[in-house]
Amino acid sequence: MLQESSVDSSGSRFAPLVVLELASDTKEEAIAWLLSRIRDRQQNGGAELLVEQLGPGIGVEEKENPNMFLVGASMQRLLCGAEDLGLFKECTDGSMRAFTFASKHNFKDFKGDGDGFLSMAECQYVIKHELDTLRAKEETNVPGYSHAKLYPGKSIIRRLLSKRILIQMFPLHENEELKRLSFSWYKKVKVSLQPLDDIRHYYGEGQALYFGFLEYFTFALVPMALIGVPYYLFDWEDYDKYVVFAVFNLIWCTVILELWKRRSASLAYYWGTLCRKKAFEEPRPGFHGVLGHNPVTGRAEPIYPTSKRHLRVYLVSLPFVLLCLYLSLYIMMIYFQMEGWALSIYDENPTFWTHILLFIPSIIYAVVIEAMNLIYRYAAEFLTEWENHRLESSYQNHLVLKVLVFNFFNCFASLFYIAFVMQDMELLRQSLATLLITSQILNQFMEAFLPYWLQRRRNKKMIRKIQKRRLYEEKELPLVEQVRLEADMSTYLGTFDDYLELFLLFGYVSLFSCVFPLAAVLVVLNNITEVYSDAFKMCRVFKRPFADPAANIGVWQLAFEAMSVIAVVTNCALIGMSPQVRSYFPESETQLILCTVAAEHVLLGFKFILTFLIQDVPKHIQDKLARLEFESLEALKKKKMLEASQLSKTVQ
Amino acid sequence: MLQESSVDSSGSRFAPLVVLELASDTKEEAIAWLLSRIRDRQQNGGAELLVEQLGPGIGVEEKENPNMFLVGASMQRLLCGAEDLGLFKECTDGSMRAFTFASKHNFKDFKGDGDGFLSMAECQYVIKHELDTLRAKEETNVPGYSHAKLYPGKSIIRRLLSKRILIQMFPLHENEELKRLSFSWYKKVKVSLQPLDDIRHYYGEGQALYFGFLEYFTFALVPMALIGVPYYLFDWEDYDKYVVFAVFNLIWCTVILELWKRRSASLAYYWGTLCRKKAFEEPRPGFHGVLGHNPVTGRAEPIYPTSKRHLRVYLVSLPFVLLCLYLSLYIMMIYFQMEGWALSIYDENPTFWTHILLFIPSIIYAVVIEAMNLIYRYAAEFLTEWENHRLESSYQNHLVLKVLVFNFFNCFASLFYIAFVMQDMELLRQSLATLLITSQILNQFMEAFLPYWLQRRRNKKMIRKIQKRRLYEEKELPLVEQVRLEADMSTYLGTFDDYLELFLLFGYVSLFSCVFPLAAVLVVLNNITEVYSDAFKMCRVFKRPFADPAANIGVWQLAFEAMSVIAVVTNCALIGMSPQVRSYFPESETQLILCTVAAEHVLLGFKFILTFLIQDVPKHIQDKLARLEFESLEALKKKKMLEASQLSKTVQ
Repeated sequence: MLQESSVDSSGSRFAPLVVLELASDTKEEAIAWLLSRIRDRQQNGGAELLVEQLGPGIGVEEKENPNMFLVGASMQRLLCGAEDLGLFKECTDGSMRAFTFASKHNFKDFKGDGDGFLSMAECQYVIKHELDTLRAKEETNVPGYSHAKLYPGKSIIRRLLSKRILIQMFPLHENEELKRLSFSWYKKVKVSLQPLDDIRHYYGEGQALYFGFLEYFTFALVPMALIGVPYYLFDWEDYDKYVVFAVFNLIWCTVILELWKRRSASLAYYWGTLCRKKAFEEPRPGFHGVLGHNPVTGRAEPIYPTSKRHLRVYLVSLPFVLLCLYLSLYIMMIYFQMEGWALSIYDENPTFWTHILLFIPSIIYAVVIEAMNLIYRYAAEFLTEWENHRLESSYQNHLVLKVLVFNFFNCFASLFYIAFVMQDMELLRQSLATLLITSQILNQFMEAFLPYWLQRRRNKKMIRKIQKRRLYEEKELPLVEQVRLEADMSTYLGTFDDYLELFLLFGYVSLFSCVFPLAAVLVVLNNITEVYSDAFKMCRVFKRPFADPAANIGVWQLAFEAMSVIAVVTNCALIGMSPQVRSYFPESETQLILCTVAAEHVLLGFKFILTFLIQDVPKHIQDKLARLEFESLEALKKKKMLEASQLSKTVQ
Repeated sequence: MLQESSVDSSGSRFAPLVVLELASDTKEEAIAWLLSRIRDRQQNGGAELLVEQLGPGIGVEEKENPNMFLVGASMQRLLCGAEDLGLFKECTDGSMRAFTFASKHNFKDFKGDGDGFLSMAECQYVIKHELDTLRAKEETNVPGYSHAKLYPGKSIIRRLLSKRILIQMFPLHENEELKRLSFSWYKKVKVSLQPLDDIRHYYGEGQALYFGFLEYFTFALVPMALIGVPYYLFDWEDYDKYVVFAVFNLIWCTVILELWKRRSASLAYYWGTLCRKKAFEEPRPGFHGVLGHNPVTGRAEPIYPTSKRHLRVYLVSLPFVLLCLYLSLYIMMIYFQMEGWALSIYDENPTFWTHILLFIPSIIYAVVIEAMNLIYRYAAEFLTEWENHRLESSYQNHLVLKVLVFNFFNCFASLFYIAFVMQDMELLRQSLATLLITSQILNQFMEAFLPYWLQRRRNKKMIRKIQKRRLYEEKELPLVEQVRLEADMSTYLGTFDDYLELFLLFGYVSLFSCVFPLAAVLVVLNNITEVYSDAFKMCRVFKRPFADPAANIGVWQLAFEAMSVIAVVTNCALIGMSPQVRSYFPESETQLILCTVAAEHVLLGFKFILTFLIQDVPKHIQDKLARLEFESLEALKKKKMLEASQLSKTVQ
C-alpha cells in the first residue's frame, strides 16, 4: 500500500505516514495557515514536514470529509527528528546508543541514505512529536476562529484538538507489513512464541511490552496449572496438599513479579527505551486554567492551582469512590439474599431445574459486576478529567487508581465475604468458577467479537459501495479509500483494559486458587485465546495506534505487587482456617491465630527481602548501562581537558 | 595557621591543604618518583599539584618521621578540579549549577581570582580526588619496591596505601576557622540551632547531614517528650491514655521520617549535592583478585568472581551472624536467670541493699550488651573485609546490615521477651530505663571523654616538649609542630557509630515508649549532650576528615524506616495486650486478636499510602531540579539545531 507514494506540493513524491482529519467545515484560512506552518522550515519555527490533501474518494455522492491531509517527511528530516527524540539504536559493536545524525554510520542497520533504518512506527512517532511540538509564534488565535486562542509557545495541534477543529490524527497501517505480522502472530496454527520484536517494530514498545507480559504471565501460570489439574481430577481434598498449594502460590506470585522486572528490563534495553531520557512533559490537551508562566520552562501556559485539584480529589472524587464501593457492597448483599432464595427453593423442590436455578444468582451477579465496572469506568474517566490534571501521566495514575480500587472491590468482595465471613469453601469454589468463566466469556465477547462484527459491517459496506461504481479487480483498496476506511475504524484506547483484565485474573489465581486449583488452568486457556483476540483486534479492528516508547509496564507493576501482598495475607488466612492446621491446635484457637499471624509477618518480611535480593536489572545489562554512563563521563572529561589546555595556551 | 604559607620547589609560596605521611623507611627513589608524578603536568598524566617536604620539628632528638609532605595547588588548578568533580555552586540568579571554569563569573561568590570561592574542605576534597585518580602509566611496580605491583590505570595512592608505603593522607585543620566554628557550635551557652552551613563548610556534607539529622530528630522528639512528662509525673496508669500514646507514637514515627526526607533534600539541594552526578566508583583499596578487565571501563583491574563472594556471604557470614544471634539469646536467658536470683534474694530478705541488688542484673546485662556489640563490630568488619567487596558502598552496606541486625537483636531481644512472652509491663519499664540510661552513659564516655583524655595527654606532652626547647611565647604551635600533632590524632572513622546510636535510641522510643513515656525525655537529653560531645570530638579529638559529598543519609533512611514498620507491629501488639482494650472483648480472646491484627494491617497499609502521598522532595525544589533538566535539554536541542543548519549550509 505504502509503496504507492503521494505527490507533495513541491512536486516530489513522498510516503504518507500520518493522517490529519480536520472538521469538514474548517475555514479555508485556518487550513492554509496550518499547512504553511507544517511545511515551514525549522529555523522559522515550522515543522518542515511534507503534507498533502487527500483526493476525493470514489463514493463522491455521499458526503465525504474533504479535509483529510497526509503527512510525511524526507528521510533526513526523519533522522534529525529521531535524534531530537533521543531514540536509541543498536551500534555496530552491539551496544545501544542514542542516535545522532553525525555518527549515523556507527549504527548497525544504517545503510546508504538510511532507508529502512527507522521502522515505520518510529517514523510515525517522530512525525507525531514534530506536530505536537509545533508551537504558536505571534498568533493570538487560529485564523478564522477568534475563540481558539493561541499564545506564544502553545502547541497548535493541541489547541486544534481541544477546539474540535482537528478531529483526529492517526498513523496509517502498512498492509504488507500487517499481513506478514498477522500471519506470524495469530494465523499460524503452530504453537510458538509471539513475534515480540515484530510487534514492537509495527506497534511500538508499549504494545510489545503488553504482549510480552501476557506471554510471560501465561508461561508463569503453567506450573500452577500443572499442579492444579491433578488436585482437581483426583479430588485431593485432604488439606495437607491444600496447605502445600497455598505456600507454593505465595512464593510463586512474589518470584514471577520480580523475574518479570528483569525480563522487562532486558526487553526495554534491546528496544532502546530503558535508558532513553524522557523529554519534558507537556500539559495534556484537556488541561485548562488561567494563563500564567510555568515555573520550570518559563513558557506561557495555563496554570491551575494544586490546592484546588486536591480539593476536587479529596472532597469529590474520594467520597464518590467510597459511595460506589458502598453500593457495590449493597449489591453483593442482594446477591447473597438471592443465593439464599435459590437454595431454599432447591431444598423445597430438588429437581434438575431448581438445581440449574442454583447457578443463576452467580451468573446474574457476574453480569451485574461487569456492567457496574463498565459504568464506573465512565464515571471515573469523567471525574479524573474534571480533576484537571496537568500531565497525562498524572491523569493516568489517578484514573488507574480509581478504577483498580473499585474493580478489585467489586470483583473480590463477595469472594472475601464467602471465604472469611461465611467460611464456606464449597460456595467459594462455586462462586469463583462462575465468576471466572462468566467474566472471561463476557470479556472476550465485548473486547474482540463485537467490535469486529461492527467493523466487518462497515468494511463490507465500503467494498460494496466501491464495487457498485466500477468493477473492482484487485482485492486491495486504493490509497484514498484505504485512508477513509481507516479513519472510520474505532480508535484503540491503549492497553489499560487489557492490563486491567490480566490484573483481575492474576487476583483470582493468586488469592484463591488454593481453593479452586483449576483457576490457573482456566486463566491459561483464557490467556491463549486472549493473545489471539488481542492480536486480531490490533490488526483488524482498530486504527493503528501511535507507538508509545515505554520502558516498563509502569503503574501496573505496582498494582500487581500490591495484589501479591494481599495474596500473602489471604493465603495465610486460608491456611490458618484449614481444618488440617486447626487440628494442630486442638484446644486453643488463640494460639492458632497467633501462629498464623506470625507466619504471615515472617512471609511478608521474607517477600520484602526477596524483592531486595533479586536485582531488577540483569547484571549484563547493568554493565552495559554503566559502560554508557562511564563513556559519557569520560568524553566530558576529555572535552574539558582539551578546553583547559587550549585556555592555558591562550593565557600563555 | 594557614596564613603561614609554605614555599614549594619552584620558589612560590602555597597554602598546604593535605598531608601525605610516607613510612619513615621509604626508599628515596620511591619518594622522588611519587613527588614527580604529583607535580607533573596533567597532559603528561600527572596531578599538577604543589608538594613540599615538611621540615624537621623542634624535638629532633626523638625519632620523628622525616617523610611527611604537604600538598597544595594553585587556585586555577583547584577550580579546574572542582569542575572535574562537577561541584554545584550557587549562581547569581539563586539557582544551583555545576561549576564550570568558563562560566565562573555567573557564580555568586566568585570574585577576582576566585579566592574564597571554594571552601577549604572543598579544596581538600579536590586534592584528595586528584591524588586518588593519579594513575600508573607504564610503571610495572613502585620504584624500589618490586612487590608493589602497578599496571596501567592503577591508582598509585591506593597501591601505596595497600602496601603500607603511604601510612596516611589527611587534610589539615584550619585553626582560625575551627575556633570560630567551635565557638558558634558548642562553646556558646545560649541555646540555638546548630550552625549547619558552617559545619558543612568546614567538614563537608556528610558530617553536616548527620548533625542536621541529629538536630531534626531531637526536635521531632520534643512533642513525644512533652506528652511523656505528665504521663510519668501523674502516673496516668489507666490504659485509656496508654492507647492514645501508642497511636500517637505510630503516626509520629511515620511522619517524622517522611518529613526528614524532605528536609534532607532541601539541605542537599542548597549544598549542591542533590543533583551532582556521582563519578564512576573505583574499587576500594583492600579489594584484590586476579588481574582482568573491567567490563564497564575496559581498564585493567583486579577481578573477583561474584559467585565466590556470594559463597562467602551465604556460607560463612550468614551462619556466623546467626550463631552470634543465638549467643546473644543465650546470654539473655542467663540475664533472666540472674533476675530471678536477685528477686528471690530480695523476697527472702527485703533490705535496702537487696533492693539495690535488683538493679544489678540489668546493669550487668547493659554493660555486657555494649561489650558484645563492640566485639561483634570488629568481627563484622573483619568478615566484611574478607568478603572482598569491589566497591566501598557495597562494603558499607554489608557492614551496616550485619551490625544493624545484631545490635537490634542484642539490644531489643530482652525487651521483646519481657513484653510479649513474660507480659510483665512493670519489668519492661524497669529494664527499658536501665538499658537506656546505662547505654547512654557508657556511650558518651567511650565516644568522647576517653578519646579526649588520651588526646589531651598527647597534646600536653607535645607542648611540654616544645617548651623544654625554647621559651614559647605565642600560644599557637608553628606549622611543623601543628602538622605532627594532627598526624598523631586519632582518625575519625565516619558517622557509622553515631547513626547506629541514634538508630537504637529511635528504637527505644518508637517501640516501647508507650510503656515508659519518659524514654523520649531521656533521649532528648541524651541528644543535647550528644550534640556537644560529637561537636567537641570532631573539633578537638580527631584528625579532620575529608569531606564526603553525601546527598542523603543513605542506607540509614532505610534502617529507620524498617524500624518504624517494626514499631507499628509492636505498638499494635502492646495495645492489644492492654487491659483496657481487653475489657472490650470480655468473653472472646480470638476476637480481640483478630481485631488487633486487622487494625495492624490497616495501619501498615495507611503508613504505606502516607509514604506515597508525602512527596520526598519539596515542590519548589522539584521545580528547580526540573528547570535545570529542562535547560540542559533545551541547550542540547539548540546545539543540534545549529549543527543541523550548518550541515545543511555545507550541503548546499
